[in-house]
Amino acid sequence: MTVKQLSLPELVEACGQLGVVNVGLWREPVQAYGLEATAKLVRDAGLTVTTLCRGGFLTAIDPAERAGALDDNRRAVDEAAALGTDTLVLVSGGLPAGSKDLHGARERIADALAVLGPYAEERGVKLAIEPLHPMFASDRCVVSTLAQALDLAERFPARQVGVTVDTYHIWWDDNAPAQIARAGASGRIHTFQLADWTTPLPEGVLNGRGQIGDGSIDMREWKGYVEAAGYAGAIEVELFNDQLWARDGRELLAETAARFVEHAG
Amino acid sequence: MTVKQLSLPELVEACGQLGVVNVGLWREPVQAYGLEATAKLVRDAGLTVTTLCRGGFLTAIDPAERAGALDDNRRAVDEAAALGTDTLVLVSGGLPAGSKDLHGARERIADALAVLGPYAEERGVKLAIEPLHPMFASDRCVVSTLAQALDLAERFPARQVGVTVDTYHIWWDDNAPAQIARAGASGRIHTFQLADWTTPLPEGVLNGRGQIGDGSIDMREWKGYVEAAGYAGAIEVELFNDQLWARDGRELLAETAARFVEHAG
Repeated sequence: MTVKQLSLPELVEACGQLGVVNVGLWREPVQAYGLEATAKLVRDAGLTVTTLCRGGFLTAIDPAERAGALDDNRRAVDEAAALGTDTLVLVSGGLPAGSKDLHGARERIADALAVLGPYAEERGVKLAIEPLHPMFASDRCVVSTLAQALDLAERFPARQVGVTVDTYHIWWDDNAPAQIARAGASGRIHTFQLADWTTPLPEGVLNGRGQIGDGSIDMREWKGYVEAAGYAGAIEVELFNDQLWARDGRELLAETAARFVEHAG
Repeated sequence: MTVKQLSLPELVEACGQLGVVNVGLWREPVQAYGLEATAKLVRDAGLTVTTLCRGGFLTAIDPAERAGALDDNRRAVDEAAALGTDTLVLVSGGLPAGSKDLHGARERIADALAVLGPYAEERGVKLAIEPLHPMFASDRCVVSTLAQALDLAERFPARQVGVTVDTYHIWWDDNAPAQIARAGASGRIHTFQLADWTTPLPEGVLNGRGQIGDGSIDMREWKGYVEAAGYAGAIEVELFNDQLWARDGRELLAETAARFVEHAG
């Protein structure tokens, strides 16, 4: 998504030219290009798919909506397995229309994980609950902190459910370093993502994830926390940013790779 | 600020017509109308000033900036005393330009409170640290949770430093109810403010505080927490909202009073 202006073949080619060997994918462009075609494309290029983003949206109350969400998440697990990644990122979902019950919504996520965790494990896929910044609590994700994500994840085996650590969402939280240690101790850091915090936030606040080095987050500090917690997996840079998306995708990918080396290498 | 489209005399008159007997004031309109004139205006109308907003912005590193901030906060304390309120709300300030050190910024706030707390106490004024929503952590307030605010406040006597509990900033935090109890136990809930959480957030996110009842927050639930913690003071409704400010101020004040009764009465 960092360079969504590139088609998948363009992305794969640009990764090859830059020496990038890992890539995180989102479902929508994969579905548009075709699941099997994408799997072949990245396999033939020698690229490893680090994670698939994203399943989730598991907070509905309506039974038909809940069944539909579970079906969609089973498909997401299948897609992850077909792409050869062992990690599906979950964005939990916000409050249903008219509801003010955060606790209830979080419990419905746990109910869904009880169904999806075993399904994923059978296919070699781990679920990675991503706490999103509290500014998304009503409309996108009622899981706002690593502590909340771990409270959910720890009800299940780590091989089924863990967490996504994303600097953008947790950088403000003085409790987050201790929670990263907690996650690492039970092998639940399933992926680590970087984006920087820049202001002013755009309307709707979704597409304001800043380029590494442009904002307020000390990337090396957070990398240190996850490494100290035992994480040795890939590090993803995930930028959603209208201004960055308006630029040339190859140039942006090259810049992002250089910023990664400068600020988190 | 909820009805900043009204002048202070218009506000006082409208409060009288609605039977509103308490009002929270902001420094800028008070300074524009004149401190003594405002004090006389509210006194003659029989209105009680609940709090003055706001002091703070205590995170600068530059010594001249720090000295200037302390001077400004002493003036804010003096203004609060002149208006007859015992509470000055503090918005702590964000990260200085180029800094990524949240911890250091929080420590500089403590240093400033050590100076301002005794100054305020001598004038019968309490300082009320307001944790702001984490979306303001970089540019406005590095104190993002009630727990962080209390970690700061508890270094000082409760008669000098407490906290502001504002539903808008803390509603997403499952740890907040316990922190309200913690604050109440040491007599540190210095004021309680309401606004609702509505989306989409506007660009810059400052002026998106929703009218009571329009959003995701159960006002009565939070009122219950502060009352259970022993708070028996006034409840303020503080809305910053460009759409509300575009409306007739008297109508908005009447609507706000009615919504208060409906959702928090």
